Amino acid sequence: MDVILYGVGEIGKRVADRITKSEGLQIVGAIDIDPSKVGKDLGEILGREPLGVTVESDAQKVLEAYPHAFVFHGTVSSLEKAYPQIRQILETGHSGVSTTEELSYPWVRHPDLAKALDQLAKEKDRTFVGTGVNPGFLMDYFPAVVSAVTANIEKITVRRYVNASLRRKPLQAKIGSGLTPEEFKKRWDARTLGHVGLVESAYLLAHLLGWEIVGLKETCEPVLAEKTIQTDYFTVEPGYVRGMVHRVFAKDKKGREIFLDLCMALDHENPMDEVEVQGDPPIRVRFPEGVHGDYATVNVALAVLKRVPDLPSGLLTMADLPLPIPV
Amino acid sequence: MDVILYGVGEIGKRVADRITKSEGLQIVGAIDIDPSKVGKDLGEILGREPLGVTVESDAQKVLEAYPHAFVFHGTVSSLEKAYPQIRQILETGHSGVSTTEELSYPWVRHPDLAKALDQLAKEKDRTFVGTGVNPGFLMDYFPAVVSAVTANIEKITVRRYVNASLRRKPLQAKIGSGLTPEEFKKRWDARTLGHVGLVESAYLLAHLLGWEIVGLKETCEPVLAEKTIQTDYFTVEPGYVRGMVHRVFAKDKKGREIFLDLCMALDHENPMDEVEVQGDPPIRVRFPEGVHGDYATVNVALAVLKRVPDLPSGLLTMADLPLPIPV
Repeated sequence: MDVILYGVGEIGKRVADRITKSEGLQIVGAIDIDPSKVGKDLGEILGREPLGVTVESDAQKVLEAYPHAFVFHGTVSSLEKAYPQIRQILETGHSGVSTTEELSYPWVRHPDLAKALDQLAKEKDRTFVGTGVNPGFLMDYFPAVVSAVTANIEKITVRRYVNASLRRKPLQAKIGSGLTPEEFKKRWDARTLGHVGLVESAYLLAHLLGWEIVGLKETCEPVLAEKTIQTDYFTVEPGYVRGMVHRVFAKDKKGREIFLDLCMALDHENPMDEVEVQGDPPIRVRFPEGVHGDYATVNVALAVLKRVPDLPSGLLTMADLPLPIPV
Repeated sequence: MDVILYGVGEIGKRVADRITKSEGLQIVGAIDIDPSKVGKDLGEILGREPLGVTVESDAQKVLEAYPHAFVFHGTVSSLEKAYPQIRQILETGHSGVSTTEELSYPWVRHPDLAKALDQLAKEKDRTFVGTGVNPGFLMDYFPAVVSAVTANIEKITVRRYVNASLRRKPLQAKIGSGLTPEEFKKRWDARTLGHVGLVESAYLLAHLLGWEIVGLKETCEPVLAEKTIQTDYFTVEPGYVRGMVHRVFAKDKKGREIFLDLCMALDHENPMDEVEVQGDPPIRVRFPEGVHGDYATVNVALAVLKRVPDLPSGLLTMADLPLPIPV
């Protein structure tokens, strides 16, 4: 399977690294507009031996050069911003996957863009899937899978606690590291902080369960440092922000509830992922060591990419797939 | 969705109970050959108010009386024994699900029977799915789902530890409760003891991962009581069997391994379900309280039944489905 990497950021680099270690997948082209990357060999950017793939800024040219390749798209979280890129991918006749968070379930918040991409994909007989680990797996798809062992569900609670000290800089920044509580509040009010995709997870989970959400509330509160915290990228003094608790409460029309509880903080002492289902009988399942988001996003998205050739055409979500095949 | 219950044993009774508590499902017919049940109202057998459904021994008559109903088949573990019943279900034009353990992945051990049923289902444009929780979910489908977050997998270990004291009599019997170690060995050698479906789980998991099993070893050892154990059905003195450790080791052609470790014993002190994946990165996930097999089998099978109208025709396994919809 030939792959074009559309975006050589943190996720794109990990995708490239994973593909070089996997059988049956190879990178044939790479696209990025970052001047520090354009013209360089992809291997060089990874800090390894050359791979014979030069990063290019002209997406159209790369897409046209490899008409039979599949696209791994990972550039931005916003569907509005990713939209012209995905149009281009489909218009040049490619199928692929994207880690754009808002694509994980675009049908509620961006129904017009979703419909337009779905229609274009069908016209071109191509398949494009929004995927990833969060959104796309841990707080939506996985809880839906687990729910099958119980019945008459009243509430699903998903907890994801992440030690952000072990994560990359953009993640440490998006949780508000180093801000004052007041700055945090302002930036949350302007939605320039927080996790993109939590609301999409609630809608995707509801869709997978056959529920219809009629009310949804989203909150984001800072977590403050009690002692000085030092990471590779931030120094946080006591009283300043070391992370966030980002939550979504959703209710379906029969009164059933979804509660997504995402805490990402520097030096989080209890990282883990957990699903609790209040049903008959109640069910609890936990990843005691948690799941590392960056690795898992790449792995899930590549596992989904391997299914793409067998999927129907259109704009798909995890709800439309048979199981992904691990790379 | 109208449902015919084909088999009113322990599972069938739980299915009936669940359906009466669920929206959108109703039982229209019930089949069993047990003289103590035939002619009785299903509600009476459940120890509840009458449901207006009489248990009948003439399967053909019930199947013909409700041509648009879906069938929940739960009679025996052996596909050879279930085969004529499933033929009859398909020949009378019904789709449905079955908890017959050997149907969870019949393609390796019973390829001829599987092919014949698949062909018949396709001729009749009907869908029939082998499902359940073990086999069908906990030791095969669920580990495959979890594996998507990692990559380059070397080994998957699935542990299921069950406190059989909390389970029904047939399960306490099939794990050898009350036998001497010698009797246990004889009965295992004759395969009249042990869990049916562990080998199917290994093949189903391998299939879901895209692996090809080239070697497989199955063992079953007794667990002995150290003190007297008393259940509703058995008294086990010290030195006698209180359960079993049933294991399957499988290797795929690239050297990757599957290890299924099933321990079911009276008074098991640490019941739980766990999946450990040796991959990049390693992943561990656990149901700390375990999953109750009888409830979960019913719930998973009904969740799958709700998908049946949307599925392609043929004899299917969990590998062929989009996610089940919880009841």
